[in-house]
Amino acid sequence: MGPGLLPRWPAWLFKVAPGWWWKGYSHALVRTACTPGGTVEQRRRPGGSRWVRRASPLACRSFSASKHPSEVMLTQERYPVRRLPFAVVSEEDLATFEGILPGRVVTSPEELAAVNVDWLRTVRGCSKVLLKPQTTEEVSQILRYCHERNLAVTPQGGNTSMVGGSVPVFDEVVLSTALMNQVVSFHSVSGILVCQAGCILEDLSQYLEDRDFVMPLDLGAKGSCHIGGNVATNAGGLRVLRYGSLHGTVLGLEVVLADGTVLNCLTSLRKDNTGYDLKQLFIGSEGTLGVITAVSILCPTKPKAVNVAFLGCPGFAEVLQAFTSCKKMLGEILSAFEFMDAECMRLVGQHLHLACPVRESPFYVLVETSGSSGEHDGEKLDGFLEHAMGSGMVTDGTVATDQRKMKTLWALRERITEALSRDGYVYKYDISLPVERLYDLVTDLRARLGASAKTVVGYGHLGDGNLHLNVTGEAFSPQLLGALEPYVYEWTAAQRGSVSAEHGLGFRKRDVISYSKPPAAVQLMSGLKALMDPKGILNPYKTLPSQA
Amino acid sequence: MGPGLLPRWPAWLFKVAPGWWWKGYSHALVRTACTPGGTVEQRRRPGGSRWVRRASPLACRSFSASKHPSEVMLTQERYPVRRLPFAVVSEEDLATFEGILPGRVVTSPEELAAVNVDWLRTVRGCSKVLLKPQTTEEVSQILRYCHERNLAVTPQGGNTSMVGGSVPVFDEVVLSTALMNQVVSFHSVSGILVCQAGCILEDLSQYLEDRDFVMPLDLGAKGSCHIGGNVATNAGGLRVLRYGSLHGTVLGLEVVLADGTVLNCLTSLRKDNTGYDLKQLFIGSEGTLGVITAVSILCPTKPKAVNVAFLGCPGFAEVLQAFTSCKKMLGEILSAFEFMDAECMRLVGQHLHLACPVRESPFYVLVETSGSSGEHDGEKLDGFLEHAMGSGMVTDGTVATDQRKMKTLWALRERITEALSRDGYVYKYDISLPVERLYDLVTDLRARLGASAKTVVGYGHLGDGNLHLNVTGEAFSPQLLGALEPYVYEWTAAQRGSVSAEHGLGFRKRDVISYSKPPAAVQLMSGLKALMDPKGILNPYKTLPSQA
Repeated sequence: MGPGLLPRWPAWLFKVAPGWWWKGYSHALVRTACTPGGTVEQRRRPGGSRWVRRASPLACRSFSASKHPSEVMLTQERYPVRRLPFAVVSEEDLATFEGILPGRVVTSPEELAAVNVDWLRTVRGCSKVLLKPQTTEEVSQILRYCHERNLAVTPQGGNTSMVGGSVPVFDEVVLSTALMNQVVSFHSVSGILVCQAGCILEDLSQYLEDRDFVMPLDLGAKGSCHIGGNVATNAGGLRVLRYGSLHGTVLGLEVVLADGTVLNCLTSLRKDNTGYDLKQLFIGSEGTLGVITAVSILCPTKPKAVNVAFLGCPGFAEVLQAFTSCKKMLGEILSAFEFMDAECMRLVGQHLHLACPVRESPFYVLVETSGSSGEHDGEKLDGFLEHAMGSGMVTDGTVATDQRKMKTLWALRERITEALSRDGYVYKYDISLPVERLYDLVTDLRARLGASAKTVVGYGHLGDGNLHLNVTGEAFSPQLLGALEPYVYEWTAAQRGSVSAEHGLGFRKRDVISYSKPPAAVQLMSGLKALMDPKGILNPYKTLPSQA
Repeated sequence: MGPGLLPRWPAWLFKVAPGWWWKGYSHALVRTACTPGGTVEQRRRPGGSRWVRRASPLACRSFSASKHPSEVMLTQERYPVRRLPFAVVSEEDLATFEGILPGRVVTSPEELAAVNVDWLRTVRGCSKVLLKPQTTEEVSQILRYCHERNLAVTPQGGNTSMVGGSVPVFDEVVLSTALMNQVVSFHSVSGILVCQAGCILEDLSQYLEDRDFVMPLDLGAKGSCHIGGNVATNAGGLRVLRYGSLHGTVLGLEVVLADGTVLNCLTSLRKDNTGYDLKQLFIGSEGTLGVITAVSILCPTKPKAVNVAFLGCPGFAEVLQAFTSCKKMLGEILSAFEFMDAECMRLVGQHLHLACPVRESPFYVLVETSGSSGEHDGEKLDGFLEHAMGSGMVTDGTVATDQRKMKTLWALRERITEALSRDGYVYKYDISLPVERLYDLVTDLRARLGASAKTVVGYGHLGDGNLHLNVTGEAFSPQLLGALEPYVYEWTAAQRGSVSAEHGLGFRKRDVISYSKPPAAVQLMSGLKALMDPKGILNPYKTLPSQA
């Protein structure tokens, strides 16, 4: 490394209100600050500083919790959606549920308020009952009964959907996996974990880290999201670049089908070519084809060394060059390549008082390495940085190796969502594009929207070709929305991109499916739904387009 | 590394008939020696030593080609299978095919002989016509016509199935992807390759290596197998440990459905969560749900450094310890962990005159590393070897870094199949088991079979929990078969293993599916088949059990 070019950590970074600083974004403290509805349980390890279980993703992302659930407009009032002819939950149904789940049938308005609304506070259902099974057999009994009775069911994990996928639209029965939170087995030679669907991602991460392994996925909502929900939505997040998608890492699933049939494909095998790989059907189907009750997942060994570099780039072409160089020079140790533009940095500075750790630049990238030798990884990273700075693709940078400083750098990227929410009303797009066109959409939109938008930002998982495009306005504006949609979707479709890279379709995006899937694919989806859930009771009004 | 403990390469290894040695197992020369039926084209680069395209897997694996295709007993005579009521190909049909594929409708008995028989020479169909489309549109027209006419179709790639999956059982129309061999695009930033289904794996590997990338899969049949067939069978092979399965690396597929509908899911995106991930249905469905016509696949950067260590272990417990240590100490650079027992070494010595490069041991493991720094990787490997030898889990070993020597070490593992075929009649099992029980089945079988078996060997991809269990006898014996089956399958099922780890079910294993899949899963498979191919014309008599 060129001396002086890349200080390992600039001391001045810590001058910005250090007391507040750590309070402001440490997961633990934020979690206690704003849980939704105030009814959600939180725990802290005895003597420890770590809060576990039940912290809301709202909290992790520090969204405004000022709006009470009941203030969110009902989905059926806000959107043009009609209730399908499902049965209505009766007293007799409640009694049957109580027979199956003694003491775990919830009808209290307070607890229902929290499960009826999504964490973005954009959709709200009016379910009258929340069921909390503990076992697969209980889930099977519930679904068998609901199927017979033609009662619609919304499966719910940590309720962290970004697209309104995890809350009822009308009065669907909410089937929560919250009490299905047991680790079934962990095999320390193969690294295969088997657990119930309701295990919280962060708890699993902690469980594995104690055993020198890690989960193959990590995401902002880890303190709340359930592994079953992660699998049902094919959650992406921060480790896709390194460990690939859940389609590769999930080895087996146990699923209860719409009619209550238990489909046991919970193998703990890295290879199994006996017929169709049925579990794949449920990964990313958002609870519309079956309810995932248990997961078998392949976990990588915990890296012994992690480095985070935060770099400034003079242009997007240089960001791409840096990515190509990283892949070549860091190879197997590259574990994240995230980017954000100057507007993102301005927002986290303005709204969250986070300081930019490098010289002001048009673009910033966060490079993370994870490997089995700190010395080797450091040498590789230094080699890359020397090359990157020598060739001008990076103009300034800083590197962190200790946990606290790495978190500080990650916060710059992870807290953009929060900063945006403080900037105004946010229009959110989660798009996959060929990497070289990734930023063109942002530039294009800035020109198109002009002064009608307050801010237009682009950031995301560049290593995965995944752009988070966000636009803010002072308040919701139908004109601005009209300028954004369908323009953004059409632009994406013209590049053969995906209009939902990792968030799924849920309720709010189901009707944009045709921008990324041809009619034959939508037709096959409908055929699969009809085959596996002929009455359509599982998570209705989600994933499939309203006209399908 | 302890001095003297691990000579980088023992000179004496090369004393064994060096001229023959290289001839004997170099892919190029072997390929020329025994192509099936003598009709298969081979090419050599001008001035180069590399043969490409069309070498038979028979050749790669040096199976005896003495048996002419017509000497293989017809499947319908050997197995209790009844022809389903499909139409019979008429002169009119041939004329229609000729209209769709001018000059590419083959009816010559010689060419048909080769496509009617599998490479193991265990099954033989009697198809009267072979179609060679070049485009997706042609495949679509063919299937639309066959669907209307109720003509059964067997899709065929490189015809390298180990389970009789790629040849007709009766008179199905053979639809070959051989002429669909064009690379559509390659993106050097993202590493995403898009190509037609008939591209030969080895050709794609070469194409990518020239561009500093590699295919995420590699297998013995690479000189013949087509990428479309690889995907259709979810081929495993040698790189699963490092790059995962095709369910993770395949990004998109173009598939023609049974009725001729083109399903275009050929996205080149790492992330796409717009609805069900339909391509997954076709990965591993062995051509029974649709014909794959194009593939989009994510390719890793070519490693700059590769090391191969060949080690002797005193027992299977030590093999497992070595695996655990490897995962910890080699971490991200570990790219293969293969094992073979002493009997395997005896066979490759006796039948192929390959010399054991280390002291005689009960077990041998082959460890491969692939990384971005030769120096770092060497240090990591040395660290592991010192630890492994110091703690007694490895008693002797040798390490190779140059291409030729690495191939020699790999040959010991890769040519076991060939040695077995020379040992007698082979009963083959391809099984997934929890790693710690992997070898128990071999020990158990030796005791059970006693002198009735000539040889019982165990080897395979230990890193994937994949055992290749092979038993030889002087000739086929119904008694020996009776002692093996269903015993092997029941043993595997009791461990919740898979009775087909990577070879699939095809024709010959379809009726053992119930050992690894519960009735609800088989029922769902049948439902999917009925939905997507209601007339059952696609690769009939395969994958689904005969009673489904």
